[in-house]
Amino acid sequence: MISNTMKSVISNNSIIRAMFEEGMRLSKIYGEENVFDYSIGNPNVEPPESIKKVINEILNEETPNYIHGYMNNSGYDDVRDDVSAFLNKKHDLTLSRNNIVMTCGAAGGLNIILRSILNPDDEVIAFAPYFGEYNHYVNNFCGKFIISPTTPGTFEPDLKALSENITSKTKALIINNPNNPTGVVYSEEVIQGLANLLNEKQKELNTTIYLISDEPYREIIYDDTFVPCILKYYNNTFTAYSYSKSLSLPGERIGYVVINTLMDGFEEMTSALKVANRILGFINAPSLFQRVIAKSLYAEVDVSSYKKNRDLLYNHLISLGFECIKPQGTFYMFPKSLIEDDKKFCEDAKQFNLLLVPGSTFGCPGHVRLAYCISYEKLKNSLPAFDKLAALYNLK
Amino acid sequence: MISNTMKSVISNNSIIRAMFEEGMRLSKIYGEENVFDYSIGNPNVEPPESIKKVINEILNEETPNYIHGYMNNSGYDDVRDDVSAFLNKKHDLTLSRNNIVMTCGAAGGLNIILRSILNPDDEVIAFAPYFGEYNHYVNNFCGKFIISPTTPGTFEPDLKALSENITSKTKALIINNPNNPTGVVYSEEVIQGLANLLNEKQKELNTTIYLISDEPYREIIYDDTFVPCILKYYNNTFTAYSYSKSLSLPGERIGYVVINTLMDGFEEMTSALKVANRILGFINAPSLFQRVIAKSLYAEVDVSSYKKNRDLLYNHLISLGFECIKPQGTFYMFPKSLIEDDKKFCEDAKQFNLLLVPGSTFGCPGHVRLAYCISYEKLKNSLPAFDKLAALYNLK
Repeated sequence: MISNTMKSVISNNSIIRAMFEEGMRLSKIYGEENVFDYSIGNPNVEPPESIKKVINEILNEETPNYIHGYMNNSGYDDVRDDVSAFLNKKHDLTLSRNNIVMTCGAAGGLNIILRSILNPDDEVIAFAPYFGEYNHYVNNFCGKFIISPTTPGTFEPDLKALSENITSKTKALIINNPNNPTGVVYSEEVIQGLANLLNEKQKELNTTIYLISDEPYREIIYDDTFVPCILKYYNNTFTAYSYSKSLSLPGERIGYVVINTLMDGFEEMTSALKVANRILGFINAPSLFQRVIAKSLYAEVDVSSYKKNRDLLYNHLISLGFECIKPQGTFYMFPKSLIEDDKKFCEDAKQFNLLLVPGSTFGCPGHVRLAYCISYEKLKNSLPAFDKLAALYNLK
Repeated sequence: MISNTMKSVISNNSIIRAMFEEGMRLSKIYGEENVFDYSIGNPNVEPPESIKKVINEILNEETPNYIHGYMNNSGYDDVRDDVSAFLNKKHDLTLSRNNIVMTCGAAGGLNIILRSILNPDDEVIAFAPYFGEYNHYVNNFCGKFIISPTTPGTFEPDLKALSENITSKTKALIINNPNNPTGVVYSEEVIQGLANLLNEKQKELNTTIYLISDEPYREIIYDDTFVPCILKYYNNTFTAYSYSKSLSLPGERIGYVVINTLMDGFEEMTSALKVANRILGFINAPSLFQRVIAKSLYAEVDVSSYKKNRDLLYNHLISLGFECIKPQGTFYMFPKSLIEDDKKFCEDAKQFNLLLVPGSTFGCPGHVRLAYCISYEKLKNSLPAFDKLAALYNLK
């Protein structure tokens, strides 16, 4: 009875979500403290304490019909003013409210962008490993999802392969910086290389190719890592941002899209995104949390706890013989699985109550993703489970 | 640069939204008190006072990561338990959490239903006058929107015409009860007639035809009007509900979908809706407001103020010679425009700072919609503007 595309989505249903639910099930049996759930990016670090205070301030200062009412489908004007002013200061830009559409997180942002630009059979490219949902977002609007490889060992874009994958049907390239699942952050040089190639291809093919940068992990970075502001390197650029990770508010569905002023047809595009927010049923980003965000632009979560987790887990995995790139950002790690069959490896891990996600979910078999946004205590307690898992394959 | 379908949406952009924004613009010029904005269903009645208290309770009682975190894409289990228990009590049903998907309002609910059931070129029928967004929701997923007439004078479904419009491509019929824009409520008899016809057609064509009932105005009813519970009359039924109007929380984007247990392929359908919530980028209904709803199931807004507005406005319009069905529910009224050209009529009204929406927006030219969810004071002050408008056409 359900649609054909939905049938195929369900049969390949999100392994991440299935693991998350398996984790809840196992927790009920073995106790929450004995299940080591590395499956989902549900931040364990608390939202800033100020959030509660800010909610109370808003409830006390504004009328309920204003706080909970409709506004422009792009979001409250003053909130968009505040977000653009913040970004201008942070990245030395000249954005205004017209560049900003408040969205239902980055996932909502990506969907309204794709709804706005895709004609049936248009192609959208992403680099493997990629966040598995991109595929579905593109399929929602009858687009074609094209996977382009990264360079083995660095997970950085393979520009030669990308060049071959770009055709006259290519409408967009989605990047995720900092990257889920690898934790890699693209440097200025990498971004510049991408921009140069896209500019060449636009000229050669006489088309517009959008660069969509999905950046929910922009603030979750370690060791003075620098995340370039994509808007400065390429004109036809959108960024999709979310406060899910940077303020630990994933359930509230609040984020924004930035539309580059230099984009071809900027005005028409801002109308399209606003309308897409409406007709996809978002209508507007949740109203109270738009106002919360405007008062929390300088708030931060404690990224140092993620760093502590990264260091302990990374060092332990390396000591066990895992091969892994040290993450510069996000709270994910993407080591090679100890056997080639990553799905079997994740099945094996389950017997130690260890929930990992196979790399094939991200278009990159032979690896596993670990979401280390769990408590330090839990992470420490999970290390013997990794020892036992490694021992299965007689590595130690 | 934007997609072809989006181009056509933008060029016919929501007149309601344009009016809403025109209202804000005029308010800045003439003062808010001198602009009579009947354009948008943005409730003026305040949310129940308890909402603020409930938010505070939740913030004090639960951990921030729980309140603002991810949960099952269908919504918190306990919230879905509470919603189903409430509905069971209210309508004498036997729903469980499995029947409920918490959604980003009714608009989000309708979109996840359509994403779940539509193959390209599938047909979805609605009765004119219809809420203009249905057309876009169907087009989002490459469906074909089919308009079927109502009986002139009653705005009730014309079953003969419907019967002729149902083909082997018909996937669903969307109804809106209580109805926006007419304020008409379908009686048990009307619903039973629809159910009988759909059952016959399913048998005759050997297809599944879903009945989708959009019910954000279920609680906004007057004079002991009874709104039948659609689940009892037809098996392949969804209802899409929103707290936007019933609790005056339109900006918060909170509602739910009910999937009838007796639906063909019920289990698969519940998975599809859950996945659609995820891949369309909603991920889940906003988390804090899911919890607010669970604690506000018996809360109500003051419907009597809408009734007071209805009575004053209806009587005045009738006294001016307008032809209009007296609304039994919603906060809309749908009189005939005083000249055939409803768009010109609305343009004429603007000179008196009176913002109305042409019936053609709802597939029903020659009428206008008035959203009378404005203050009684404002409504009273607007009456002379209607007098002046009527005088334009020498009616009085």
